[in-house]
Amino acid sequence: MARPCGPENTFKPLAVLLFTTKQVVKAMEKEVAKRSQTITPFFNPRSVAVIGASGKQKKIGYVIAKNFIESFAGKIFLINPNAREILSHQCYPSLSSVPEEVELAVIAVPAKIVGEVLEECGEKGVKAAVIISSGFKESGSDGAKMEEELVMISRKYNIRLMGPNCMGVFDSSTMVDTLFIPRYRLKRPPRGKIAFISQSGASGIAFLDWAAGEKIGISKFASYGNAADVDEADLLEFLAGDSETKVIAMYLEGIKEGRKFASVAREVTKNKPVIVLKSGATGSGARAALSHTGSLSGSDEIFNAVVKQTGMIRVYDWEEMFDIARALAYQPGARGNRVAVITNGGGAGVMIADEIEKQGMKLADLREKTLSGLAAKFPPHVTLRNPMDLGGDADNERFQDALGAVIEDDSVDSIILVCIPHTPSIDLESFVDMVLDTKGKNDKPLTICLPGGRVSLEIRELFEENEIPTYPTPARAALSLSALVRYGRLKNGA
Amino acid sequence: MARPCGPENTFKPLAVLLFTTKQVVKAMEKEVAKRSQTITPFFNPRSVAVIGASGKQKKIGYVIAKNFIESFAGKIFLINPNAREILSHQCYPSLSSVPEEVELAVIAVPAKIVGEVLEECGEKGVKAAVIISSGFKESGSDGAKMEEELVMISRKYNIRLMGPNCMGVFDSSTMVDTLFIPRYRLKRPPRGKIAFISQSGASGIAFLDWAAGEKIGISKFASYGNAADVDEADLLEFLAGDSETKVIAMYLEGIKEGRKFASVAREVTKNKPVIVLKSGATGSGARAALSHTGSLSGSDEIFNAVVKQTGMIRVYDWEEMFDIARALAYQPGARGNRVAVITNGGGAGVMIADEIEKQGMKLADLREKTLSGLAAKFPPHVTLRNPMDLGGDADNERFQDALGAVIEDDSVDSIILVCIPHTPSIDLESFVDMVLDTKGKNDKPLTICLPGGRVSLEIRELFEENEIPTYPTPARAALSLSALVRYGRLKNGA
Repeated sequence: MARPCGPENTFKPLAVLLFTTKQVVKAMEKEVAKRSQTITPFFNPRSVAVIGASGKQKKIGYVIAKNFIESFAGKIFLINPNAREILSHQCYPSLSSVPEEVELAVIAVPAKIVGEVLEECGEKGVKAAVIISSGFKESGSDGAKMEEELVMISRKYNIRLMGPNCMGVFDSSTMVDTLFIPRYRLKRPPRGKIAFISQSGASGIAFLDWAAGEKIGISKFASYGNAADVDEADLLEFLAGDSETKVIAMYLEGIKEGRKFASVAREVTKNKPVIVLKSGATGSGARAALSHTGSLSGSDEIFNAVVKQTGMIRVYDWEEMFDIARALAYQPGARGNRVAVITNGGGAGVMIADEIEKQGMKLADLREKTLSGLAAKFPPHVTLRNPMDLGGDADNERFQDALGAVIEDDSVDSIILVCIPHTPSIDLESFVDMVLDTKGKNDKPLTICLPGGRVSLEIRELFEENEIPTYPTPARAALSLSALVRYGRLKNGA
Repeated sequence: MARPCGPENTFKPLAVLLFTTKQVVKAMEKEVAKRSQTITPFFNPRSVAVIGASGKQKKIGYVIAKNFIESFAGKIFLINPNAREILSHQCYPSLSSVPEEVELAVIAVPAKIVGEVLEECGEKGVKAAVIISSGFKESGSDGAKMEEELVMISRKYNIRLMGPNCMGVFDSSTMVDTLFIPRYRLKRPPRGKIAFISQSGASGIAFLDWAAGEKIGISKFASYGNAADVDEADLLEFLAGDSETKVIAMYLEGIKEGRKFASVAREVTKNKPVIVLKSGATGSGARAALSHTGSLSGSDEIFNAVVKQTGMIRVYDWEEMFDIARALAYQPGARGNRVAVITNGGGAGVMIADEIEKQGMKLADLREKTLSGLAAKFPPHVTLRNPMDLGGDADNERFQDALGAVIEDDSVDSIILVCIPHTPSIDLESFVDMVLDTKGKNDKPLTICLPGGRVSLEIRELFEENEIPTYPTPARAALSLSALVRYGRLKNGA
């Protein structure tokens, strides 16, 4: 059975020798666009059917139906042979009885009838199906056979499948939301520029809830479970073309098809940064991954080689993942690795100097002109070098002068600002305005370290809302800046 | 001039050859106790004088006077020649006019009159002085000379000095509080078992405020500034004998006397864990430290050798410092390095398996009896190995069974519990009770990974209040447990 979409038959090596480079690039782009179009209905369907919708609050089919009814703008069809109405919404006994076209099907029925339901989807002309149901490959050989059947059906009808055994999709713009945990229990993150895809459903939603708590904006989320059809590479390729996504973060335990993944990743990182958290890095982790999703996580050396070749950024914890993702989502890549540090706490400056060296960056040698200009304005106890320690008595104005000067200094590629917000001379509210006023004056990336507890949390959030990535510790601010330096280097082809 | 206390003349090599080991140990203990007694008045004085107390809200002398008046239980004498009353409290024109004994003096007057004030302290019989004032060694050679004079005066009168150029002391029990940032701006942490000493004042208070925000309990805090007299080693030695302190965390930029510090640290770690965050680890950091506190941070290799020899635990960021400090404050050291992991999210289990191997621990091989006992209770999709993945549908009871079984299993030395709290089957409130019920049933250290945003924050705090260290990410939970394994090894002499 021929199949125009899907990885298996579209990822053949292109016969490039007879074409010019331009023709080849165009042909490749067309192929990519065609493949990506088949993923679009998962995130932006005109209509959706919830198969297995339920009126019982504890049921997965209830939560999913409720999510769509509450916020999805397209057409919604609830399917349940035993109900006439769910959540005051008309219910259809079967998909075939729906009088209109259905683009996306969300399937939450017992494993043994998923095949039957998918056949019905095929006959109805459904383009994409999220199969929430578990009980397939992950549960043994019988399940694996059933999963193979799903793949056969999907090919027969040209339906793209996500799952089975997955949480599915959350799109903060269209509000497709198949996450079957109620919203009071799992907060959905605000709209934003970070796309996040996760092989593990439970870890995925835990990250997502954490992001929501930290008010980190997410464009799209997908948990693709057993990856019977749609896998990490398909999603990566699709997100590369998504105008709402500026940076892509992935949580992987293994990779379905290494060559395909590497080839896609190499293309994507030319335009968007890709951050990858891959567990199973050690022998113990790899064995655990095998028993969890049946993933062969493969050799970590090979994976590291792929990371290096493709220009992805590898991280080891999700705090690190979102720290770096925020920096990449908000700030430009750096033109070079020379960093200026401005601080009102000498100790934090020292810690940042350490991190800068560890992360392969260096402290900028500030120009004589910059230093003499500031010397004329500042009291003698200000340390006029880099890190620039403005002193515990620094007020907003002193920060403003220093920040303005290093922005102008052509020996500086990027800036870390440290503000210990407890000193009486800092006026916190107007400090935010002062920093924001410098936006647009240059394209030098900036990260902020604003230590302290909940007293400073509000200010950190103000900065975040205005796309200045802000961190509570020096190490996190410096590590995040280093991602901007690395990504800048990649973009500049260095 | 003879001086019974203070490091310079008490740290001479003891002539041990003529004594038995027992006698030597006793003599050494006596020496230590004697030295530590001279530090006690900083934290627990019967009476305190605030010299430079002020009625003007913006002044340092106002904030310090207010702190003491609000919460200190001992006698308070405010000294200011130009005021009769401050904050409805009688004011004395000079220290000599105070009719009673003064044990601790807090000096917040301009640098040029500090010497004169200290002479007065000496004549009055003051035992300890915190010199908040700056303008000494850190500001150049004139200041350095003035600082030397302070040291001369302190020796003449046997006064111990903290500072100058410091934030001084905070004691959550006696409420000595010389931190001159108002409490609405800098939250004070609750009482607890972690002592924290910091060379840098600004970084110190930033950490402290962060700890307060995270509700991390602190026993004692000291920022000792230029360390003209009392230094990191003196404080370390004193805290070793402090019954309220279970773990000591230090932030250093350099070490005043390397040999003395190493010798003290080696003794202290036999009884209490010592965590050290030392900046200036790289060339860039060391140069920055030199211009900040004038510290020669020395070679990082040498420092690492000292860390290894003395059994201290080195960290690189303050999040890491307090993560580990909480684990060591609440939980016992582990008997060995075999860890059991229980999770309801497979992905987090895989990440923890990775971290366990990276941190030099290993996944315990659970006993056949443990596994067969659980197999009889659990549905077939539960992964009966280590990490034990209880499945996304795990409820409190399943967690309880698993936790109970690994506590009993003699192949297990410590436990990491991962709870993805978003799944509908978990009842969060009683989950806390369930875990707390296992306390006292064993002495196996336990850390918890409870991912998610502000939804889980409250539960994390509940665990914290009950001394179960709880972290939002797998890496942080595993790293913190590893400190318990390392400290357990040190205590067992391995």
